Amino acid sequence: MTDGEAVNKRQMAPVITLTTDFGTSDAYVASMKGVILTINPKAVIVDICHSIEPQNILQAAFILSTAYHYFPEGAIHLAIVDPGVGSQRKAIILKTPKAFFLAPDNGALSYIIDELDTTPAKPAHHFSPSPEQRKLGAGFEAVAITNPDFWRKSVSTTFHGRDMFAPVAAHLSLGIAIHKFGESLSHVFAFHIPRPFRDNQGNLIGRVLHIDNFGNLITNIRSGDLPGERITVTIGSQHIDGISQFYAEKEGLAVIVGSSSYLEISLKNGNAAAFLDAKVGDEIRLKQ
Amino acid sequence: MTDGEAVNKRQMAPVITLTTDFGTSDAYVASMKGVILTINPKAVIVDICHSIEPQNILQAAFILSTAYHYFPEGAIHLAIVDPGVGSQRKAIILKTPKAFFLAPDNGALSYIIDELDTTPAKPAHHFSPSPEQRKLGAGFEAVAITNPDFWRKSVSTTFHGRDMFAPVAAHLSLGIAIHKFGESLSHVFAFHIPRPFRDNQGNLIGRVLHIDNFGNLITNIRSGDLPGERITVTIGSQHIDGISQFYAEKEGLAVIVGSSSYLEISLKNGNAAAFLDAKVGDEIRLKQ
Amino acid sequence: MTDGEAVNKRQMAPVITLTTDFGTSDAYVASMKGVILTINPKAVIVDICHSIEPQNILQAAFILSTAYHYFPEGAIHLAIVDPGVGSQRKAIILKTPKAFFLAPDNGALSYIIDELDTTPAKPAHHFSPSPEQRKLGAGFEAVAITNPDFWRKSVSTTFHGRDMFAPVAAHLSLGIAIHKFGESLSHVFAFHIPRPFRDNQGNLIGRVLHIDNFGNLITNIRSGDLPGERITVTIGSQHIDGISQFYAEKEGLAVIVGSSSYLEISLKNGNAAAFLDAKVGDEIRLKQ
Repeated sequence: MTDGEAVNKRQMAPVITLTTDFGTSDAYVASMKGVILTINPKAVIVDICHSIEPQNILQAAFILSTAYHYFPEGAIHLAIVDPGVGSQRKAIILKTPKAFFLAPDNGALSYIIDELDTTPAKPAHHFSPSPEQRKLGAGFEAVAITNPDFWRKSVSTTFHGRDMFAPVAAHLSLGIAIHKFGESLSHVFAFHIPRPFRDNQGNLIGRVLHIDNFGNLITNIRSGDLPGERITVTIGSQHIDGISQFYAEKEGLAVIVGSSSYLEISLKNGNAAAFLDAKVGDEIRLKQ
Repeated sequence: MTDGEAVNKRQMAPVITLTTDFGTSDAYVASMKGVILTINPKAVIVDICHSIEPQNILQAAFILSTAYHYFPEGAIHLAIVDPGVGSQRKAIILKTPKAFFLAPDNGALSYIIDELDTTPAKPAHHFSPSPEQRKLGAGFEAVAITNPDFWRKSVSTTFHGRDMFAPVAAHLSLGIAIHKFGESLSHVFAFHIPRPFRDNQGNLIGRVLHIDNFGNLITNIRSGDLPGERITVTIGSQHIDGISQFYAEKEGLAVIVGSSSYLEISLKNGNAAAFLDAKVGDEIRLKQ
Repeated sequence: MTDGEAVNKRQMAPVITLTTDFGTSDAYVASMKGVILTINPKAVIVDICHSIEPQNILQAAFILSTAYHYFPEGAIHLAIVDPGVGSQRKAIILKTPKAFFLAPDNGALSYIIDELDTTPAKPAHHFSPSPEQRKLGAGFEAVAITNPDFWRKSVSTTFHGRDMFAPVAAHLSLGIAIHKFGESLSHVFAFHIPRPFRDNQGNLIGRVLHIDNFGNLITNIRSGDLPGERITVTIGSQHIDGISQFYAEKEGLAVIVGSSSYLEISLKNGNAAAFLDAKVGDEIRLKQ
């Protein structure tokens, strides 16, 4: 996609999505939308999620990574979970072949960067405790948002979402090229996302990446990682045999390939996370 | 409304509404919106409700039935509460003189079908425990969504909302006729909705259909069913005399004709459902 | 802004915002949106907040006052927290140089009216217990919504949001002048908003106006009220020295100038309101 093509696509469907930990009890999200619509009245704004747990950067990163695939090409995705707002952390635009992402440079784009990272060192077995510098692969660009021409005139130290990210997204949706917003970056920060690995006994070891609204546990094992259908999954003290095709198929706990191709653990007519007292990062073991 | 007229109306205001039990903590709803906007960038998407209690088909059915009247003619309403996703349950489009409805064929359109049903057998006094086959009345059409040409290329077994219902709704909003999406159906599934009836003593017996966010109890007795204003309503051990004109009129519990013409029980500056420990299906007795 | 200019602006960006206590578990908000889109399919509807505490007029008033500044000129803002719906309370349109506001005349626009009030009597030290009549300043207009030509044909006594405010807002967004909707008003109701004042010892005394989703306490002391940076803030039994530039700067409790220029009290990686057991109206003392 050349810059010109991107512009055309964006002018046809200037979709801007929002993922934040702002909640919906305050006017924070609405203020961002007001700023965007003032600059680009044709912007189509879509909420992805505003109930990210306060300051849970990895949760925002996961949610955004499962959603952005389904949006039009050239869509602009904001992910604002920003405990370091006003400090020296950078604000960035990341351009991929599919979309634009705006976020503080604090790991909020970790899953997207992890997908793109063609030269990972040793794959991680755990989430890294903090984000680390990662070199961008070919076909991807990033800039630091440093040019105040596209910000609100007065930028608060506490709400860059409204004063910096929203106006930059709106200008981007009008077709302005990303290099106008600041200098290029070769590296951005990302958490290492754990990859499944085999232990000494040949078991495939995965981790829970996310717990959804139904209490389904979404793991880092993908359908392509599966050695076959005749498997036993162990989580905590529970063992689950076989893979189900859909949620309603089986009573009790079930393992299923979910809608984003991740292996999920669910409980028929119940909440698997509550039943298992499970949390993000928990280990699951898959035995053939 | 001919198909051509419907198309014109839809091209002017291609409104698509969403009612689900997906919550707003995950990217599920946003993924559906992304799919819709990719196919029809001009679609105007309106959330009706995403906090339907997980798998509570009747709650979704009620909420949708009270909302759709207020939308433009030809609007497209999706109701996705779908515990049987991936199983043999059908996915359907129902076309009425007023609107289009897309849902799993599991009772999620029960109130709409109940309204249309011109030949009901003996009216129900209780919710039926499960949905039953109902013949569609004149002027209504339904199809099973079976033509994969309008689906996403890869359809997951767990998320037909995104992979089947959203793209079908988007194509429908572009003016494609419903018979292109699959074969006609003469029957669809619906729960029986209880109708008020008279007991041996001449009391009118109704039931609580819904409890709203303020704790108001919405019953199945409509203003047209009332024998007059000088009535006493009994629920549990409480008696309420007379009908109020508005919420603020009277201290304590009050009976009022609500905004959808259903009789409601409310508590001034309080939560009637919590005060009465009431739930959906509870009986109310109305004495003249 | 002349009426003609306002019309042009509104035709370019007919933004309508919604602030209510309706929650998002019912179809009430969606019904209003359906009514608006039926009358003006081009309206861009933005949710500000629907989780106002039931019947908390002042909370809605605060939320709206912090949001509306960021919307395009000529935007139309509805604030529907309406415990007196159906009673004799008026419904009003308030026109300011920046925007249009629709609300019951019950104090839901208190902060906006307070900002405009160029001739306040003795500034308030507390919230007034109920709203009081206030004369509108120059440049502002208000009308009572009394002309049923712009309402839904049948107006319920319990849901003026859907039957009166939504259709009036939609017609307003089509460019109809406000005097068409009803007779002019010289006075509207507003709560007195407490202003900071100095006590006998020269301390600046303020109050908590709002507690946000992060538990930050937002006070009525603005950056312009500050005697300098070397201050001590006391709330309950806690003392906080100095003003921080951003949330992440300091461990524990911090005082910061927030994104709406109000002084805020926050807790790094925590919830200040829960930690301090603070509530709206609580006193804070600022010592130089």
